[in-house]
Amino acid sequence: MRVGYLQFCPRFGEVEGNLGRVLSLLGEKEAHLWVLPELFSTGYQFVSRAEVRELAEPVPDGPTTQALTSWAQERGCYIAYGLAELAGEKLYNSAALVGPEGLLFLYRKAHLFYREKEFFTPGDTPFGVVNVKGVPVGLMVCFDHLFPEAARTLALKGAQIIAHPANLVLPGVAQLTMRVRALENRVFTVTANRIGEESRAGERLKFTGQSQIVSPHGEVLASSGEEAEEAVTVEIDPAAALDKDITFLNNLFSDRRVDLYELCGGKGE
Amino acid sequence: MRVGYLQFCPRFGEVEGNLGRVLSLLGEKEAHLWVLPELFSTGYQFVSRAEVRELAEPVPDGPTTQALTSWAQERGCYIAYGLAELAGEKLYNSAALVGPEGLLFLYRKAHLFYREKEFFTPGDTPFGVVNVKGVPVGLMVCFDHLFPEAARTLALKGAQIIAHPANLVLPGVAQLTMRVRALENRVFTVTANRIGEESRAGERLKFTGQSQIVSPHGEVLASSGEEAEEAVTVEIDPAAALDKDITFLNNLFSDRRVDLYELCGGKGE
Repeated sequence: MRVGYLQFCPRFGEVEGNLGRVLSLLGEKEAHLWVLPELFSTGYQFVSRAEVRELAEPVPDGPTTQALTSWAQERGCYIAYGLAELAGEKLYNSAALVGPEGLLFLYRKAHLFYREKEFFTPGDTPFGVVNVKGVPVGLMVCFDHLFPEAARTLALKGAQIIAHPANLVLPGVAQLTMRVRALENRVFTVTANRIGEESRAGERLKFTGQSQIVSPHGEVLASSGEEAEEAVTVEIDPAAALDKDITFLNNLFSDRRVDLYELCGGKGE
Repeated sequence: MRVGYLQFCPRFGEVEGNLGRVLSLLGEKEAHLWVLPELFSTGYQFVSRAEVRELAEPVPDGPTTQALTSWAQERGCYIAYGLAELAGEKLYNSAALVGPEGLLFLYRKAHLFYREKEFFTPGDTPFGVVNVKGVPVGLMVCFDHLFPEAARTLALKGAQIIAHPANLVLPGVAQLTMRVRALENRVFTVTANRIGEESRAGERLKFTGQSQIVSPHGEVLASSGEEAEEAVTVEIDPAAALDKDITFLNNLFSDRRVDLYELCGGKGE
C-alpha cells in the first residue's frame, strides 16, 4: 500500500485556488491513501466566526468534498483532508476521508487549539476507524497529537494507519509526539502539515512543515523540510501494524494494566 | 530543588557491594531527590524464581531499604530506587521512595518486561504520588514508559516529578518516550538507567545508559552517555510543572476530552 502526504502552502480564503493547487500537486504522483493538511482549502487564521461561516462547507455536499471525491473516483484512491465544516448553525474544524465510494468518515477535531476555540465548536464525533482497501485507518487532527488518548483510542479500535492533517506552528513538537504515538501503539502515522505564513489581525503565524510518515517502530520513513511544497509517498506494509508483540512475552495491548489506569478516561472497558 | 540520578553498573548478586558503590557515588554530590536504577542492588538477569527469592528483600524491613533510609536521614534527602521485593510468597519488581521519615511509597512494577514475567508477580499497587519536600513525586519503572496511561495517571494525581528507575536495553526508545511523557503531562521526569552487560544462561544483555532529566517542556536538562558511571544533578523549579496552560486558551488537563476517549481505561472519572 502506498501512502502519502501533501505539504503545501494554502492561500487564505482562496478555496478554489487551493483545491486546484492540491490536485495539480497530487497529480504528479500515485498513492492509495493521501493525507492533506488541516483546513487545507481555506487557510487557518480566521478572525471571526462570520468569516469561517463564509468559507465553511457542508460535508459531503460542499464543493471541496465533491471535488475530492470525484478525483478519488477517477484515481481509485483515498484522501484524508482537513476542512472548515458547516453543519447547520455549527462550525467544526473537521477531517474527512473520501474514496471512490464517496465519504467514508467525518471526524470533528476534539482538541481545539488556541483561537480555534473562538470560531469552532469542539468535536462531537467519536475517534473512529474506516476501512481503506481492507486496512483500518483512523483520523486525528493537529493538536490531538498532544493527547495520547486520541491515538490510543484509534489504535484500540483497530487503526493500522493514523492520518493526521495538521497546521503545526511549534517546530519539532508533533514530530516527536507522533513518533511516540506510532511506537506506543505500533501503528503507522501520516502527518501532513502545511507551510508558509499567515498574518492577520496583527498576529503572525509561521507554519512549520516537517510533515512525516512514521512506522510502527517509530522510524521516520519520510519527512519534509520546513519550506518544501511537495507530495511525498512511501510504500508500507500495513500488516506490520498488526504485530503488537514487543517480545514473545510482551504484547502492547494485552499487557495494558487497565485495572491500574485511573482518571485517564475510557468508557467501554 | 535539586534532583539527580545515578547511572552505574550493578554487579549481579552482589547486593552489599552494589549498595556500597551507590552510597560512595552519591556521597560526591548533593541532591534533594535521588533516583537510582531498577533492581539496582541485585542486578537484572535472574535465571530462576529461586534465585530472585534468595536476593529479594522485604520493604521496608530489608537491609537495602534500611541502609538507604539511614543514609537519607543523615543527608536529609530522598531516594527512589528499584529493588527485588519479597512480600510473603510473592516477588515483585518494585520501586520504593525513602526519606528521613522512612518509607514513603512502594510501587510494584505494573508492566513487566520479557522474562521478568517468569520471576515476578505483576504489580498490584496503584500508580501513586507522595510529597517530597512539598512536591508531589510519582514512581514508575522502566517498561512502564511505553504505556502512556502510567505517566498520565501519575500526572492526573498531581505528580510534578516522575522518578523512573530503569534497566533499559533498547537504545534511544525510552529517551524518546520519556520526553513525550514530560511534554504531554507537563511534568519533570528523571530516568535513572544502568549500564554494563550481563550474560547469564546463554543470553547476553547490554544496558544502554543514557539516563536523563527532562523538563515539563520536553527539554533534556541533563543526560549521560551509554558508558558513563556518574551521579548527575540538576536544579529545577518543580512549580513549572503546575502550569498546564499551553496557550491562554488551552489547558493540558481541562482540554482533555474524556467523553471521547474510549477503551483507554480510567476508573474514577
